[in-house]
Amino acid sequence: MELASATWTEIAALETDLAVLPVGSTEQHGPHAPLGTDTIAAEAVAKAGVDRFSGEVVQAPTVPVGIAEEHRYFSGTMWVSPDTFRAYVRESVASLAAHGFDRVVLVNGHGGNVPALGEVAATISRHDEAYAVPFTWFDAIDTDVPMGHGGPLETALIRHLDPELIRDEQLEAAREEGADGWGEWVSATNLAHDSAEFSKNGVVGDPTAGDAELGEVLLERSGEALSTLLEAVSVRKRTRD
Amino acid sequence: MELASATWTEIAALETDLAVLPVGSTEQHGPHAPLGTDTIAAEAVAKAGVDRFSGEVVQAPTVPVGIAEEHRYFSGTMWVSPDTFRAYVRESVASLAAHGFDRVVLVNGHGGNVPALGEVAATISRHDEAYAVPFTWFDAIDTDVPMGHGGPLETALIRHLDPELIRDEQLEAAREEGADGWGEWVSATNLAHDSAEFSKNGVVGDPTAGDAELGEVLLERSGEALSTLLEAVSVRKRTRD
Amino acid sequence: MELASATWTEIAALETDLAVLPVGSTEQHGPHAPLGTDTIAAEAVAKAGVDRFSGEVVQAPTVPVGIAEEHRYFSGTMWVSPDTFRAYVRESVASLAAHGFDRVVLVNGHGGNVPALGEVAATISRHDEAYAVPFTWFDAIDTDVPMGHGGPLETALIRHLDPELIRDEQLEAAREEGADGWGEWVSATNLAHDSAEFSKNGVVGDPTAGDAELGEVLLERSGEALSTLLEAVSVRKRTRD
Amino acid sequence: MELASATWTEIAALETDLAVLPVGSTEQHGPHAPLGTDTIAAEAVAKAGVDRFSGEVVQAPTVPVGIAEEHRYFSGTMWVSPDTFRAYVRESVASLAAHGFDRVVLVNGHGGNVPALGEVAATISRHDEAYAVPFTWFDAIDTDVPMGHGGPLETALIRHLDPELIRDEQLEAAREEGADGWGEWVSATNLAHDSAEFSKNGVVGDPTAGDAELGEVLLERSGEALSTLLEAVSVRKRTRD
Amino acid sequence: MELASATWTEIAALETDLAVLPVGSTEQHGPHAPLGTDTIAAEAVAKAGVDRFSGEVVQAPTVPVGIAEEHRYFSGTMWVSPDTFRAYVRESVASLAAHGFDRVVLVNGHGGNVPALGEVAATISRHDEAYAVPFTWFDAIDTDVPMGHGGPLETALIRHLDPELIRDEQLEAAREEGADGWGEWVSATNLAHDSAEFSKNGVVGDPTAGDAELGEVLLERSGEALSTLLEAVSVRKRTRD
Amino acid sequence: MELASATWTEIAALETDLAVLPVGSTEQHGPHAPLGTDTIAAEAVAKAGVDRFSGEVVQAPTVPVGIAEEHRYFSGTMWVSPDTFRAYVRESVASLAAHGFDRVVLVNGHGGNVPALGEVAATISRHDEAYAVPFTWFDAIDTDVPMGHGGPLETALIRHLDPELIRDEQLEAAREEGADGWGEWVSATNLAHDSAEFSKNGVVGDPTAGDAELGEVLLERSGEALSTLLEAVSVRKRTRD
Repeated sequence: MELASATWTEIAALETDLAVLPVGSTEQHGPHAPLGTDTIAAEAVAKAGVDRFSGEVVQAPTVPVGIAEEHRYFSGTMWVSPDTFRAYVRESVASLAAHGFDRVVLVNGHGGNVPALGEVAATISRHDEAYAVPFTWFDAIDTDVPMGHGGPLETALIRHLDPELIRDEQLEAAREEGADGWGEWVSATNLAHDSAEFSKNGVVGDPTAGDAELGEVLLERSGEALSTLLEAVSVRKRTRD
Repeated sequence: MELASATWTEIAALETDLAVLPVGSTEQHGPHAPLGTDTIAAEAVAKAGVDRFSGEVVQAPTVPVGIAEEHRYFSGTMWVSPDTFRAYVRESVASLAAHGFDRVVLVNGHGGNVPALGEVAATISRHDEAYAVPFTWFDAIDTDVPMGHGGPLETALIRHLDPELIRDEQLEAAREEGADGWGEWVSATNLAHDSAEFSKNGVVGDPTAGDAELGEVLLERSGEALSTLLEAVSVRKRTRD
Repeated sequence: MELASATWTEIAALETDLAVLPVGSTEQHGPHAPLGTDTIAAEAVAKAGVDRFSGEVVQAPTVPVGIAEEHRYFSGTMWVSPDTFRAYVRESVASLAAHGFDRVVLVNGHGGNVPALGEVAATISRHDEAYAVPFTWFDAIDTDVPMGHGGPLETALIRHLDPELIRDEQLEAAREEGADGWGEWVSATNLAHDSAEFSKNGVVGDPTAGDAELGEVLLERSGEALSTLLEAVSVRKRTRD
Repeated sequence: MELASATWTEIAALETDLAVLPVGSTEQHGPHAPLGTDTIAAEAVAKAGVDRFSGEVVQAPTVPVGIAEEHRYFSGTMWVSPDTFRAYVRESVASLAAHGFDRVVLVNGHGGNVPALGEVAATISRHDEAYAVPFTWFDAIDTDVPMGHGGPLETALIRHLDPELIRDEQLEAAREEGADGWGEWVSATNLAHDSAEFSKNGVVGDPTAGDAELGEVLLERSGEALSTLLEAVSVRKRTRD
Repeated sequence: MELASATWTEIAALETDLAVLPVGSTEQHGPHAPLGTDTIAAEAVAKAGVDRFSGEVVQAPTVPVGIAEEHRYFSGTMWVSPDTFRAYVRESVASLAAHGFDRVVLVNGHGGNVPALGEVAATISRHDEAYAVPFTWFDAIDTDVPMGHGGPLETALIRHLDPELIRDEQLEAAREEGADGWGEWVSATNLAHDSAEFSKNGVVGDPTAGDAELGEVLLERSGEALSTLLEAVSVRKRTRD
Repeated sequence: MELASATWTEIAALETDLAVLPVGSTEQHGPHAPLGTDTIAAEAVAKAGVDRFSGEVVQAPTVPVGIAEEHRYFSGTMWVSPDTFRAYVRESVASLAAHGFDRVVLVNGHGGNVPALGEVAATISRHDEAYAVPFTWFDAIDTDVPMGHGGPLETALIRHLDPELIRDEQLEAAREEGADGWGEWVSATNLAHDSAEFSKNGVVGDPTAGDAELGEVLLERSGEALSTLLEAVSVRKRTRD
C-alpha cells in the first residue's frame, strides 16, 4: 500500500510489519536521460516488488536526493552529505517502526548510495527498533549488459517506464562522448573522486543498447528479486532478536 | 523547469539563478485525507507559482518527509528530527547554488516545518553561498476560512488536485470527531506537544467545508502569491551582499 | 525560591516539581535601551510570576545569551547558534529534572528565541525526563500597544524596573530613525534576515510611548499570566505519561 | 563597561579590543554557601579586574551554568555537558569578536570548568577570529589558605561580597561533615568522579576559616592579577598573527 | 621513512608530499589467528610498498581500531563507530597535510573499513587540503585463493610475518567450524549484519590452505601494487586542482 | 595479556574485568628524540604495570595519535581534535566493556591528552557501561627531575627502552635551543597556545640529564604505580554502582 495516498486509518488497519523505503538520487545521467533517473527507477522497482509480493507491504515515499557529489561538475546534480543522508534514512525508518513497520527494505536506485545504505542498515538493525537491509536493483538482476552510468540498463528502464524522458536525438552523442568504464584504476584503487575526471558528458557505457523491451525485462527481474527478498525478510530472525 | 525531468545539459543552458524547493510532510490528515497531503500541496503550489512567473525557475524535487513528530500517535506518520530536516534542506540548497541557482524559495506545505525553515533560510542566507526564504502557501492566501489540520483548506486543495484522494464517506466522521482548534492554550502557551492530546482523529476544523471550487481558488491565489514572491526574490539584494 | 541564592540543603527540602528557567538575550535595543533588555525582562517576569503563584517554584539563573544573529550589525549584540542554544537549555532543564524539578516553564524575553524554545520544549517533553513549555511574556499580555523592538512595551517595562537604564535623551532619535514594522514582507514572506536591512538604528516602534506606568501594568499582567500557567502546568498530565 | 547595561551606540563608540567573559557555575557549595557562589565570584572578580585596569574593557554577561555534573548528587546543582559548555563559550566569544572585541579573557569561578576553558581558548585562538585565555581567580592569588570546595576561600569571598548569602548557623556542621581533601587518590589518579564519593555534604576544607576580611583581600588580589593579565593580553601578539 | 622513529627535524628535511597511513582493526580472526591480524597486515604491506617505491614516503603510525562491530559477538573485538573512524582518519591526514604531506594513501587491512575509507578519502580530496585514496591489500593482489575471514590469505600473510602468531593446533578446528562464505544472501542482499549469524567461530574460508610461502608471495604482490599506486599518486592531478 | 597477539578464544577464556588502554601521541620531541616518544612510553609503561600486577589484565593496542595541535609548527606532528580523540577513546573502551572488560585504566604518555582523558573517563564512568580512570606515567612517579618536553625524563625513558632512538649528536643543540619552562605565564595564565611561541626547537628542559639508568628507574616506578592503581581499580565500587 502506497503510504502517501492512504489515510492513517487505512494504514492503522494493516496487519504487516513490512515496509519499503525507495531511495533515489537527483543527478546527471548524460545528455539523454533525466536527472531524476535513479529516483524514478527506485520507485518503480519498489512498486514492482510490492505488487508481486503475496502479502501486505507499506511503500513509503521516495527519498529524492542522495549521495551524488561525485557528479557535482554536471549541472542540476543535487546532493547531501553522507552523514545527512544516513540520518534522513535512519530517522525515516525509525518513524515507520514506531507504527510497527519494523522490517524495512531500502530499495535503492543509485550506486553512490550503496556504502552509506549498508552502513545505516547495520546501524538500524543493531541499535534501533527495526531491522533493515538495502536492495540495489541493478545488483540484483542477472544480466550480461554492463551497468555503466546513464548506460544501457538505466536508459532501457526509463524508456520502458516513461519513454518521453529519454532524448533520442542525444543518444548517439551520449555514447560517443561517454566513457567506457567507471573511474581511473591503478592497483585496484580508483584515483578519480569525481565523474568529470573520466567522462566528458557524464555517461559511462552505451545507452543506445538500452531499448524499452530490455527495460521491461529489467523491471520484471528486479521486481521478482525484491519480492523474493521481502519473503525472506518477513520471516527472518531480526539481528537483535 | 522541473529538474528531475530535465537533463543536465538542459539545466546547464538555463540563464536564471532562481529555484524553488518544495517541502512537504508525510503525516496523518484525518480519516478522509491522504498522508501525503502536505507534499502534494507543496509540489502543486510550487508548480503553480513557477508556471505563473514570467522568467525561468528551476523546480527541485519535493522533500517528502519533514517535522511531524507531533502526529506520532497516528499511524503512518513519518518524521525526521528538526536537525536532520534542516541539514537535508540546507545541503540540498547548497547543491543547487553550486550550479548558480542561488536564490531559492522553500515552498512549504506543512505548519510544523515553519520554524525550522525560518531558521535554515536565515542560516543559508548568512553563511552559505545562497539566499533563501521560506514560503508557506496557506499563510500567503487571503481567506476567511480557517486552516485547521486536514480541515477545509487542505481538503479543498486536494479535492481540486486529485479528487479521488479524499474519502467522501469519511468526511462526516472526520468533522464530528475532529477538534475545533489546534492545541490546549493557557496564557498564550500551548500545553500540548502532540496532536493526539487534543484531537481524537487528528482533524482540526471542518473538512466538509472544503470543496473543489475552493481548492481551485486556493491554488490560484497561492500560485499568484508565489509568483509575486519570485519576482521580488529575483531582484533583491542578497543578505550578504 | 531563587536557586542561585539558596543552598543545596534548602533546595533539597522543597516539595515541588515546578521550576522556571528565564531565558534572555544580549542584543541591541536601539540607542536608548540597554543590550540586556531581554534578559532583565525575562528575569523580572519570572520573579513576578513565581511571587504570585501560591505554591513553591524553583527559579533557575537566567540564560543571558540567546539567538540574536539577526542583530549582528549592531555593536555589542551577542549570540550563539540555535543548536547551541537548544542544547544549553535542554541540558539545563535535564539537570533540574535530575533533582525532581521536572515541570519547567521557559520564561522568555526575546522574540528570536521563540521558534527554538518551541522546538526544544517539545523535544524535552517527548524524549527527556521532564515536561517543558515556553512562555514569552509579551505574547501573553492583553494590550493594543504593538511590540516592536526596543519599542513602547520593552521601554516601558525597563523604565519600571530600572529607570536609569533608559537614555531619555535618545528617545526622540530612537523613534525618528526607527522602523514602523519588523521586516520586509512580500506574499507573507519576510525577505529580510537581519534587522539592519529595515531599521537604521535597530528600533521598531515608538519608544516614547512607553512610560513607567505602562511598564508596571505589563509586569503585573505578565506575572499574572505566568502564575496562571504555573497552576496549569503543576497539574497537567505530562506529554509522555 | 558592562555590556548588558550599555546601549549598542555606546558600545560602538568604544575604542578597545579587550573583553572579559565571566564564567560561573550553579552548583552545591555545602549547607552554608549559595549554589550561585562560582557565578557571583566570577562576576565580582571580573568587575574588580576591569575597574583596576587603566584602559577600556567590555564586560559581557556571566555564563551561569557550567560543567558541574560531579556535584549531581547534591540538589539544585545544574550543569551542561562539556561539549555544550565549550560551544556556548566559543560562540559567545565569536559574537564579541564580530564587533572588534577579539582579545578576550574568560574569567572563571569554578575548578570544573578549567580543562574545558583551556581547550576552548586554544581552539578559539587557533581557528577563530579572536585570541582568548582563561583566568581562574583562585589559581591566580598568592595565599597559603587551601581552596577546597565551599571552603575558606570561597566562603570568605562571598562573605565580603554579600554576607547574607552565607548561613552562619551552618558553618560548624559544614566543617564537621566536610572532607579534608578533594578526591580519592591512588598513584596520582583520582578514583572518584563525583564529589558525593568523598564528601558527605559537598564541602571540602574548613569554611569557618573564611571571614570577610580575607574575602576583601582575595578580591583585591584577584582583581590585581586580572588587571595585570589584561595589560599583557592587550599588547600580546595573537597566536595566529 | 617511519614517522614515529624519526625526529621532527628529519621529517622537516624531507622533500616529498607522499605519505601512507596504515589502517587496521583489532577483531576476531578465528581461534587460530590473532586479533591484531588486520593491523599487522596493514602495517607490513605499507612498509613493503614504501620500501619498494623509488622515492621518499612518510609512513604514519597505524590506526589500530576500526569498524568491526560486525564481529561484536566474538570476545576481544574492538571497534569505533564509522563516524568516529572517519573523523580520526580525516584529521590524521589533515595534520600530515599541514606539514606538506598532502598526497596520502590509506593502506587498509580490513574489509569492514572499505566503505568508510572510500567516503572519507573523497571528502578529504574534495574539501580538505589533501588528496587521499584508499588501498586495500587483498583487493589489489592477483590470486585465485578466496579471501574469507581468518582464511587462507590472512593466515598465510601472518605466518610469513610472524609465524608464532598462528596457533597451528587450532587450524583444523578453525576450518571445520568456519563458514564457507561471508553472509546470508537473498537477491544480492546480505541479510546478516553480524558475522556470528553465519559463522560459529568467526572464520570464513579454509585457513589450512595458507602457508608461509603463500604469505611471502602475498606481501611481495601487495607491496608491488602499493608501490605502483604511490607512483601514480605522486604525479596525479589532485581532484581539486 | 596483549589483546592484539591473542585469539578471541583466548580472550574469551580470561576471568578478569580489568583492561589497560595505552594512549600516546605522535608529536615533535626535539631534534634528538623520536616523534613516537609518547606512544612508545605509554605502551611500555602499560606493559610494565600489567606485568607487575598479580592478576590478569587485557592490554589493548595503543592509540597512536592524540591531542597535539600545540606542536603543529614542528614537522611531523600529528593530531586529531579533542572531540574526535574523546570519541575514539570512549568507543574503544565501550567495545572492551562489551566483552566484560569494564574496569579500564587509560595509560597516558602525553600531557596534552590529560584534560580530555579526565573528561572522557568521567563521561564513561557516569554514562556508559564501564568505569575508567586516566593514569599519566610522569605524574605518578616520585622524582625531583622536572618533566619538560623531550626533556630529561622522556629522553631517559626512551634511552632505556630503545637507545638507538635518541640522537646523541643532537643532545647538546637540543639543550641549548630549548626553553627552560613550558609556556609564557602572567597571573597564573599561560598566554601561549603553541609550543613554537616559547621554544625554538620544541624542547623544554635539559635532555642531556636523562640517561638510561634514570630511564630504568622511571619505568620501574611508573610500572609499580600502575600496578598499585590496577589493584585499587579491581576492587573499587564503580561510580554508578
